[in-house]
Parts: sequence; C-alpha cells; structure tokens
Amino acid sequence: MFTIAIHGGAGSLTRASTNDQQEEEYKKGLRDALEAGYAVLARGGNAVEAVEKSVMALENNPLFNAGKGSVFTAEGTHETDAAMMCGRTLEAGAIAGVTNVRNPISLARAVMEQSENVLLAGNGAMDFAKAHGVAFEANEYFDTQHRREELEKAQEKEEGKNTGKGTVGAVALDESGNIAVATSTGGITNKKFGRVGDSPVIGGGTYADNHTCAVSCTGDGEFFIRLVTAYDVASLVRYKNIMLSEACDTAIQKLTQLGGEGGLIALDTKGNVELKFNCESMLRAWKNDRGEGSINVWQNEK
Amino acid sequence: MFTIAIHGGAGSLTRASTNDQQEEEYKKGLRDALEAGYAVLARGGNAVEAVEKSVMALENNPLFNAGKGSVFTAEGTHETDAAMMCGRTLEAGAIAGVTNVRNPISLARAVMEQSENVLLAGNGAMDFAKAHGVAFEANEYFDTQHRREELEKAQEKEEGKNTGKGTVGAVALDESGNIAVATSTGGITNKKFGRVGDSPVIGGGTYADNHTCAVSCTGDGEFFIRLVTAYDVASLVRYKNIMLSEACDTAIQKLTQLGGEGGLIALDTKGNVELKFNCESMLRAWKNDRGEGSINVWQNEK
Repeated sequence: MFTIAIHGGAGSLTRASTNDQQEEEYKKGLRDALEAGYAVLARGGNAVEAVEKSVMALENNPLFNAGKGSVFTAEGTHETDAAMMCGRTLEAGAIAGVTNVRNPISLARAVMEQSENVLLAGNGAMDFAKAHGVAFEANEYFDTQHRREELEKAQEKEEGKNTGKGTVGAVALDESGNIAVATSTGGITNKKFGRVGDSPVIGGGTYADNHTCAVSCTGDGEFFIRLVTAYDVASLVRYKNIMLSEACDTAIQKLTQLGGEGGLIALDTKGNVELKFNCESMLRAWKNDRGEGSINVWQNEK
Repeated sequence: MFTIAIHGGAGSLTRASTNDQQEEEYKKGLRDALEAGYAVLARGGNAVEAVEKSVMALENNPLFNAGKGSVFTAEGTHETDAAMMCGRTLEAGAIAGVTNVRNPISLARAVMEQSENVLLAGNGAMDFAKAHGVAFEANEYFDTQHRREELEKAQEKEEGKNTGKGTVGAVALDESGNIAVATSTGGITNKKFGRVGDSPVIGGGTYADNHTCAVSCTGDGEFFIRLVTAYDVASLVRYKNIMLSEACDTAIQKLTQLGGEGGLIALDTKGNVELKFNCESMLRAWKNDRGEGSINVWQNEK
C-alpha cells in the first residue's frame, strides 16, 4: 500500500480571475508533480524520496510559488523557505531566507541528512548549500513576469500588504509503511525584513511522525506558526485519539477562528488522506496504489 | 495571584568545573533577573512585560548565553535568536540570526507587537530593528573572555562540535490571569551555516496559551524542534487532560529517549510551576506572591 498527496497553494487562485485554460495548466502541473512522486513509490522507493521528487517538480514549474516561480520580495529578490521531515526517524531539515538555490527542498533534505542541525538560515544556509554541491541559479532564473506584476500591484496598493502567496508541499506513505513530508515556498509578494513563514517551522507548517501523520500547510503562515498547526493535527490524533479527518477539521476551524486563511494536506500510515482548506481554492492532488485519487482546485470538489 | 519562573540554561554548568564562588555569581544573576520580572508583576504589570524584563536582565549579564554573554559563532561573531508569545492573544514574535542587537528579546517583542509577521531572520530582522529604534551595540560589547576560550577549545577539539551552549527564558502569570513566555539565546559555540535553534521556533522552544501553559526550553535545540516540545507540553495538558507536571515529565522523557539533553520551565494560569531537566544542571529560579520560590542550579535541588 502506498499513497501520495500534494498541494500547490491555498487561496492563490480565485474563480473570478482564473479561466479554464489557466485551470488546466495548474492541473497539469499538479499531475506531473503527483506522478513524479508516485513513480518513486511505485518502484518501491521511500517516502522521503517521493515527497522530494514531487516538490522538486512543483519548484521547477513557474506557475507555483516555490523555486523558479517564487514571488518577489520588497527588494525585488526571491527568498525561499523549505523543510522536510521523515516520520520514521523524526529527522528534519529546514532552510529559511535562501536565495539562488534551484531546488530549496533538496537543500532542506541535505540539511536533514548531512547536517547535525535542523534549521539553517540566510547566507549560512547558502554556504552549506555550496559545501554540499546543491545547484544554484542566477537571479534571472527566478524572475517571472506574472510575479513581477504581482509585486508592482502590491507596491502600488499598499506597502507591505500581502498579496501573491502560495506554498507547495507533499506527503507520502511508502510500501514499507513510512511517511514523510516536504514543504517549499517563495513566501509572500513584497515581503520585507527577512520574513520567514510557517513552511520551515517544524510543527508549524511541516511535520511527520509514523505514529500519527504527515502534514504540510499552506496559507497565511503567521497563523500556522501561532497555532503550531501541523503538530496540532498530530497531537489531536495521538492524545485525543480522534480520526485524522476530524483532527484536520479541528485545525482548520482554529485557523478560521483566529482569522487566517489556508489549508493543509495530511496522511497517515493506514493510508488515510485529507486535503482540507477554508478558502476558495487549494491546488491539490492525491493518488494511491488502489487506483483512487483526484486533482482539484476549488472548494467542494472531491 | 502572580508567579514568575526563569532559567539561565541547562547543561551549561558541571559540578566538576564550577566552584562555590561561581555558583553564587550565577545564583545572584538569577536572583536579579527574577526580581526584575517579579517587580513588574508586583506593581500590577502584565506577564509580557515581566518576562521581557527578566530576560533582559539575563541578556545584560555576561554570565548567560544571551545578549551580552552570547557565545561565538565559527566566524567569531555573535548571532542571537529570541522569541516571545502572549498566552492571552496567541500573538508571537521571533527573530533569528540577528547580530549587534543589545536585547534580542525586546526585538522579538517589537516583532510581536508592531509587525504583521511572526518570524524575521538575519539582515531583514536588523532592518526592522533599526526602523523601530531598537538599541544596537558594537561587536566588542558581546566579546567576553570566557566565551572566546570556549570557541578556541571547540575549534581545537573538533570542528563544528557543540560545546558552549545555553539559553535564557522566562514564563510569568500576572494578576489578570494572563501568561506569557520569553526565550533568548546566543546559540551554540562554534556554530556554522546560520544554524537556528529552538528558541525562536514557536512550538519548539517557546509557546504560551492561557488555555494550557507557557513553556520555555533550553538544551539541545535540534531535539526540541523535532519533538515540538513546548507545544507538546501544551497538547498533553489540553488533549490528554493530564497535570502540567506529568506533561513536563513526558516531554523530558521523550527528549531523553531521542538522545537529547536539556530542560524546560512551564507554568499555567492556576499558578502551577514546573522546572524539569534531564542533565546535571539547570540554572533556574521561581517566585510567587505567596512567598514560595527557590533559586537552584543542580539536579535534585528543590
């Protein structure tokens, strides 16, 4: 039995501003990323490898706010955050405020597997990347026209206001019964002051433990940090002994109550998969080895 | 009813290398910091103000690994992390990888109260500090002889090996029944690659919620991040409905099982206070308005 689920951001698309062709392009991006991770699982590969491959595919696609498609900061640069966690070992790796790294999720994996630390930030994280042969790209690689327009709109409208946003993530269960999670983001358009979101915060936007579940969040990151959302889902499952679906609903309710928008994907070692959100859209897809799965964008699609 | 508890680091002192006079100096530092926060509470001040004042006192004391007494990085600089959280509002502020800020905890408070973000890192966080009138100091202010010797020892012994460490923190309950937490650290001696520990990770080393408890951790930060220790204590209290003391014991057991050393302080709105650790020492103190309290260093002291 194996399963994978991915997301490409919650709240980043609205029906009003998305035509059918655009929707198909996003769905194709999701499908390609889903298949990249699924293929790893189908050949007996492990969950860590699967979530990395899915997230890399999303990072390489300019449509998603991660890697190549990362939004612009207030300074016109691209600062990315990412994290990975292995549910079997509770090993974790995360990076924050990193520029020019082609695949931030692969850097997070290198931190997880080759560093004695969990979280590396800024120039130091880039020194680690250089020392470990991670691929770099010039600034221009990350400059996309639609993100530049988002920045210009954000700067015209109101300084510091969050507009363009989004995160990508994946959770997987492999044939050996292990789960893992990967999350990666370009943050929020026009962000200032080295803002770090929930993605690289273990427990906030990213968490995995074979005993409970793997969770990747997307949306208003500050709320996920304050609510420790990813670990909250795991705690509800473990300590309150409730179903994964109920735990995810509870976490989304808390997000709504505190005034945040977003969603999460989660799965456990029994093969349960949840994709929950409280806003108009969450780019999402999942697939298991029994032929079940779906690729959806809007609320109330299954 | 009001209460405050503080710590000045776990595992940083050993009996073998600490004489009576040194022990007294640490205890005097703890007493001064405890009284600084207690005085706020005694005059009807709030928990946020109290934990800030206690942690500022520890940051200003060269004995403790935070603010002035921060350890050296591998590059011979001082990079500090800090976080604050208000249990009434769940508002939080944190900074990571900041240099030259005199009182990192006050910067974390400014982020909590004056920023729309929760976590700011590196140069961006320093830009925010400058824009908000936070006090800066030259590098020399943070250079202390005993920390330089720790760096030299660490670099002789083994590159990248963690030796000098420690964190300071405070939790408080004010007369209005609100709790808050503050944590601040210079990280680990000889740290590289922009390593960020658990202190600024909300849920990892720092967490507060009036409904459960306020928690500040100290020790091997990577383990606290992976175990989401501060929020784990809160989750155990809320979802398993166990006593705060039992929740803290469980969290320390998990730390021990995973191979980490350290401790934590916690309190709740009922005035329960816990100071737990699994190593030889934790610099700690607490005091309430009923005349109870203590200042201790070693295991098995009450």
